[in-house]
Amino acid sequence: MSSVDKQLDELKTDVEQQIPNDITVTDVKYEGPELVLYTPDPKRFAGDGELVRKLASKFRKRITIRPDPTALTDTTTAEEKILSVIPEEARVTDLDFHHDTGEVVIEAGKPGMVIGRHGATLREITKEVGWTPEVVRTPPIESSTVSNVRNFLKQERDDRRDILERVGRQIHREQLGREEWVRISTLGCCREVGRASFVLSTADTRILIDCGDKPGAEGEVPYLQVPEALGSGANSIDAVVLTHAHLDHSALIPLLFKYGYDGPIYCTEPTRDLMGLLTLDYLDVAAKEGRAPPYESEMVREAIKHTIPIEYGDVTDIAPDIKLTFHNAGHILGSAVSHFHIGDGMYNVAFSGDIHYKDTRLFNGAVNDFPRVETLVMESTYGGRNDYQTDQADSEANLVEIINETYEKGGKIVIPAFAVGRSQEIMLVLEEAMRSGKIPSMPVHLDGMIWEATAIHTTYPEYLRDDLRDRIFHEDKNPFLADEFNHIDAGEEERQDVADGDQCIILSTSGMVTGGPIMSWLRHIGPDPDSRLVFVGYQAQGTLGRRIQTGWDEIPVPNPNDAGRTSTLSLNMDVSTVDGFSGHADREGLMNFVGTMNPRPEKVLCVHGDERSVQDLSSALYHEYNMRTFAPKNLETFRFK
Amino acid sequence: MSSVDKQLDELKTDVEQQIPNDITVTDVKYEGPELVLYTPDPKRFAGDGELVRKLASKFRKRITIRPDPTALTDTTTAEEKILSVIPEEARVTDLDFHHDTGEVVIEAGKPGMVIGRHGATLREITKEVGWTPEVVRTPPIESSTVSNVRNFLKQERDDRRDILERVGRQIHREQLGREEWVRISTLGCCREVGRASFVLSTADTRILIDCGDKPGAEGEVPYLQVPEALGSGANSIDAVVLTHAHLDHSALIPLLFKYGYDGPIYCTEPTRDLMGLLTLDYLDVAAKEGRAPPYESEMVREAIKHTIPIEYGDVTDIAPDIKLTFHNAGHILGSAVSHFHIGDGMYNVAFSGDIHYKDTRLFNGAVNDFPRVETLVMESTYGGRNDYQTDQADSEANLVEIINETYEKGGKIVIPAFAVGRSQEIMLVLEEAMRSGKIPSMPVHLDGMIWEATAIHTTYPEYLRDDLRDRIFHEDKNPFLADEFNHIDAGEEERQDVADGDQCIILSTSGMVTGGPIMSWLRHIGPDPDSRLVFVGYQAQGTLGRRIQTGWDEIPVPNPNDAGRTSTLSLNMDVSTVDGFSGHADREGLMNFVGTMNPRPEKVLCVHGDERSVQDLSSALYHEYNMRTFAPKNLETFRFK
Repeated sequence: MSSVDKQLDELKTDVEQQIPNDITVTDVKYEGPELVLYTPDPKRFAGDGELVRKLASKFRKRITIRPDPTALTDTTTAEEKILSVIPEEARVTDLDFHHDTGEVVIEAGKPGMVIGRHGATLREITKEVGWTPEVVRTPPIESSTVSNVRNFLKQERDDRRDILERVGRQIHREQLGREEWVRISTLGCCREVGRASFVLSTADTRILIDCGDKPGAEGEVPYLQVPEALGSGANSIDAVVLTHAHLDHSALIPLLFKYGYDGPIYCTEPTRDLMGLLTLDYLDVAAKEGRAPPYESEMVREAIKHTIPIEYGDVTDIAPDIKLTFHNAGHILGSAVSHFHIGDGMYNVAFSGDIHYKDTRLFNGAVNDFPRVETLVMESTYGGRNDYQTDQADSEANLVEIINETYEKGGKIVIPAFAVGRSQEIMLVLEEAMRSGKIPSMPVHLDGMIWEATAIHTTYPEYLRDDLRDRIFHEDKNPFLADEFNHIDAGEEERQDVADGDQCIILSTSGMVTGGPIMSWLRHIGPDPDSRLVFVGYQAQGTLGRRIQTGWDEIPVPNPNDAGRTSTLSLNMDVSTVDGFSGHADREGLMNFVGTMNPRPEKVLCVHGDERSVQDLSSALYHEYNMRTFAPKNLETFRFK
Repeated sequence: MSSVDKQLDELKTDVEQQIPNDITVTDVKYEGPELVLYTPDPKRFAGDGELVRKLASKFRKRITIRPDPTALTDTTTAEEKILSVIPEEARVTDLDFHHDTGEVVIEAGKPGMVIGRHGATLREITKEVGWTPEVVRTPPIESSTVSNVRNFLKQERDDRRDILERVGRQIHREQLGREEWVRISTLGCCREVGRASFVLSTADTRILIDCGDKPGAEGEVPYLQVPEALGSGANSIDAVVLTHAHLDHSALIPLLFKYGYDGPIYCTEPTRDLMGLLTLDYLDVAAKEGRAPPYESEMVREAIKHTIPIEYGDVTDIAPDIKLTFHNAGHILGSAVSHFHIGDGMYNVAFSGDIHYKDTRLFNGAVNDFPRVETLVMESTYGGRNDYQTDQADSEANLVEIINETYEKGGKIVIPAFAVGRSQEIMLVLEEAMRSGKIPSMPVHLDGMIWEATAIHTTYPEYLRDDLRDRIFHEDKNPFLADEFNHIDAGEEERQDVADGDQCIILSTSGMVTGGPIMSWLRHIGPDPDSRLVFVGYQAQGTLGRRIQTGWDEIPVPNPNDAGRTSTLSLNMDVSTVDGFSGHADREGLMNFVGTMNPRPEKVLCVHGDERSVQDLSSALYHEYNMRTFAPKNLETFRFK
């Protein structure tokens, strides 16, 4: 008998001792990090709200109750009963019964009302029908990404259960290493921005954290071929942890599956969906630019199938000796500071991922409060000694003024923006400015992936700033549903109409004017001296956006009548830059994140910044807080314990 | 056609352009780092002393000429002619013709006389008989190790040629990596003494340097299982470099072959022989102590078969992007400071191995002069701030005084000593003291492996201190052949006779009184209050030697009549310690090695010392010489370029 089977046998006995004699547990299994109890008495479990909570706290595991088929009410009756238990205001849009697991997935406009106070309504459902309810939100704005992911996972349920069982046994395998050590190997994003990737390893376990590419230098990828990465086989990695969905952290995650990886990916649910959206777009862009994509879309699906979503704050076993906890990072939707508790109190490492320390309109500021943390791996994008950003209130005032000026001249505002994060932040600024009368109400056209990304945001309001979340919960106050917002979904014709029409604001991808619909908007509106091009995000060296910022006014644009050619466009519109809307903490924010961190880490590895930024931040943290700081190179390995 | 075959084709054409038209080269091959030219005209090559030298310098390779069988004089005639060419004083003891390669191995008492001035005699031999002569020294003292190794290699010639051809092609393979980086991973001996092992890696190549065990803690072995070591398979290592034969550097080299390694081991010739001697003894001791040996003696033979010996100063290609050069380290016979030149002038790393900086009686001091070196990996055994040793002249005077005192009382001197290195140093001290009349002439009995180790020393006088070498070349002055030295080769009976006899000196293993014949000597002489036990080497914590040093006088010894039991022995002899005979540089020596190093390295990794020693040395080098210094932990990886 394997050690895991023995462990499960013992667990079953232990569980039986904890529950009343007349409740039967027929089997006990691991599925991913969860402990699944099979029972012919689901209604009894549901009857005692304390019981599952008690078991979870006793065994320090998330517990799932899986009813025997015999305990299930037939679906027609069950549907009826379930709908009678859930208040109508919950707006249930779909019920999906899974006979293999006894689960019923309930999609509802107001999931909170399906759950009820402390889960009372969910328990009521089980008591009535035996099924285990699982609740998901009906996206307030229809999102093809969310619905594709949900349909795909539904279709792959069998496979996925196999994966989860395998991962579950892997997580709970016996520990081999008698030695205690903790190491971090740097595979990318050291003294550079891009291709984030690390290996966190112990005598038992090896975790890959992020696996991104380097935008603008697509050939430069993390050093996956060195032995300490995947050199000894992709399955020498026990788990992948993804801090957030931006391509410089996620782009090459699907590639791992091409290399034969078949373990779990841990990230938040929105990160999973955004990763799907962005990596598929990444393949698209590569194809359009004539580059051979490093993997096929099939591999994106594999990645999604292997994802085990984790919520902020949930302590999750991901290996015999490692517990992972995500915390809000404030950077983009679902972005997570990733905390690893290693061994039984042996060591703690936090990876900041990308963070924003202050609250923004979209997100609460990054969490920097942990039970324990000895080493912090810290982003340094704006770690340079002069990398201070304008206060967002001033930036907003600046943007408002520019909009008003342009409006008065009768011109239009064109804002190139990244689909994920900055667009939604700007949408919130504009919505508020119009609602409060700081700028006149006018159409805000959203082009490229912005609409879709916004839809994903509204699907996961739990991940947004608390007051924004509350507004989204009340549909009539959901700012993203404001009348002014228009999704450009009818292509060139619609753009022509907008260009020919009255004053308006256009938010369009790509954020650095390297392609996408923004090129079309420049062609339409660029020649108009009364209109204004406003940059709200970082323009990297070598991008057209940067060139325009520095004064270029004769710019090459694709010829709409002859795809292969470009024509030259005279840019007559004014060009402005409004900074302060970054998704990254500035120098002050980074210093404060560490300075107010509880507890203060002993060691900080400054990564994810250019040479000067990591050196500056490393030196400042050392002098200011007297901690041991490092500015690693790629391909180094640090031992902490 | 493979890139190596193409390369060899081009080389053949180039060679043909460099030699006179009437000399034919039929084939060109790599054998290990050497370039082998096949020719039906060996006599023509031998006729022009400059020709091979010119080719070697043109192609920057060692060149071997291999005659076609058609060009060879029959062996009977050849033997006659060879013996007529070589002067009789050379004392040829064996001629061994190898038809497969056209080589004749000449074993002679005075190899120099077989070689002749600038190789004139060797060329003369070829001119006469066509055969390629190879010269080895007849050991002045018969050594079973040397003769076993030579016989074994003779018997394995075919296998060995296959290995060398394979390694040759591997060394000269095409470089793949477009990237340039240099890394060192620490697998052992960091902040500790023992289990020395490192990986030096580039984008193309991975070299394992040393692979030792930890004496006194045999369970603690280098971290070979981590991915950056052998985790991706033993053959992910391109080559093994062994700095010297002590077990804390060599013990687990044979284990690599058990793991499936089948690449080359680079070391000096005496290191190869001593490794054979010491690892076989290591297996023996393990068996005697009831520990399961980690490999079988067969693996020691594999290691010897895969060894490619390199002489001090020879620049040798060991990978497409790495050249290795050994330099005298002054520590033990054949010990080498190992210098790696990486890429075409890209980077240089030197591993000190274990060093002795000053001249001793046995060896010249360690070489610290290099064409270039950016990073030094430095031993720190005596790197602590107070680790100063007595000057050897004072130590010798001290020893002389102790011997005279004991002699006058009519007692005997018992010196526990390591077989390799310290014993020979003490033998030289004693021989000189007797010859110059500082102590009375008396028998010096050598017990355990000391005699055999001494025999190996006399086989390789080129590796000894220059004036000692000269004395060994003149047999009548060879100090190791002094009449006073007696090899204890008749066991207990002889020991009893010695114990019952007159004043004498006994040198016996083991050096730390952990077993071996020293136990017997203690039983015989320990009770005699007029005799003296003299420690001349380091006694590690936990050894019986250390206990006796600190005052124990009731000691357990194996019962000679009942192997399974120990009896208690009252030690009545005086106990003295004479330090200053260490094979390691002391703190001053280490500082001087680095301080006078030419050129001064930019970075120094202090390893091979306990925590305090490496920290002290690292700090002192930083403050004294303003270089970047590190005190690595095991399992770290440093990137230098």
